Amino acid sequence: MRRAWIKALVLDKAHNSPVVILGIEGTNKVVPIWIGACEANALAINLEGLEFPRPLTHDLIVNILDALDARLEKAIIHSVKDNVYHATLVIRDLTFVETEDEEGSDEHALIEIDARPSDSIVLAVKKGVPIYVSNEIVEEHAIDLQIPEDSSDEEFKKFVESL
Amino acid sequence: MRRAWIKALVLDKAHNSPVVILGIEGTNKVVPIWIGACEANALAINLEGLEFPRPLTHDLIVNILDALDARLEKAIIHSVKDNVYHATLVIRDLTFVETEDEEGSDEHALIEIDARPSDSIVLAVKKGVPIYVSNEIVEEHAIDLQIPEDSSDEEFKKFVESL
Repeated sequence: MRRAWIKALVLDKAHNSPVVILGIEGTNKVVPIWIGACEANALAINLEGLEFPRPLTHDLIVNILDALDARLEKAIIHSVKDNVYHATLVIRDLTFVETEDEEGSDEHALIEIDARPSDSIVLAVKKGVPIYVSNEIVEEHAIDLQIPEDSSDEEFKKFVESL
Repeated sequence: MRRAWIKALVLDKAHNSPVVILGIEGTNKVVPIWIGACEANALAINLEGLEFPRPLTHDLIVNILDALDARLEKAIIHSVKDNVYHATLVIRDLTFVETEDEEGSDEHALIEIDARPSDSIVLAVKKGVPIYVSNEIVEEHAIDLQIPEDSSDEEFKKFVESL
């Protein structure tokens, strides 16, 4: 697995769909993932650090995890099936750790939950936890980013349109 | 508190915003609540019983609750502040009940989570649990529904436009 980060959130004008461009640690490659408009909106809000008086849907997820003594540890985008990326949220059940007081054997406290990459990335950004991409995805689906790291938004748009 | 149900999900064309019309048990009144487009889409999907291959955001919430042995019991729309409806999700922590084996004293297992009515209603519909509206809201904010129960969509639209 390789660590990933959000390199850009852009609009694929050809399909009128938002795309998250994930940078992949230790490579010059990126993984573009098409996501829904609602999830893109939630991601943009969080990337910009905007706050709202009432809990939005992903805030609610975070509040539910907090209330149930669970902590998001990481998001893993692990595979592609029928051209759709699949992800897993890894959540630590803190109540379990408190009950079972055995050092080093807390793997049982980790719960894996099937999720879309979009929701996973929004939650990872909200909680500041790492996003990982499987080696399989890096090898088979990551593509070379031909434009410089410090390129403009316009170059990114062209890049996305060329995908 | 009074039990409420979803009488209709309509579009307020004047403000281009979806509105959930909640019927209130034992009255001819309704409570209209303006909600966001994303939440309205999630609600429509669930009211129509549509299923998707991948978990949508509210499916993810349900899966997280299941994975953490928690159960949504009810949604309560309890107050209005600055013209915004506030709700609470009441969630039962099933692990707590299992640990504390005292009959009739399981109120501690209930967790209340602040939420918007829109998310609360989507989750209540998904899990088939009751939606309640506080007496305060019924007394101060419910309005008479002047059209018959079996009215057409067109009449509903006119009703919503007249709000």
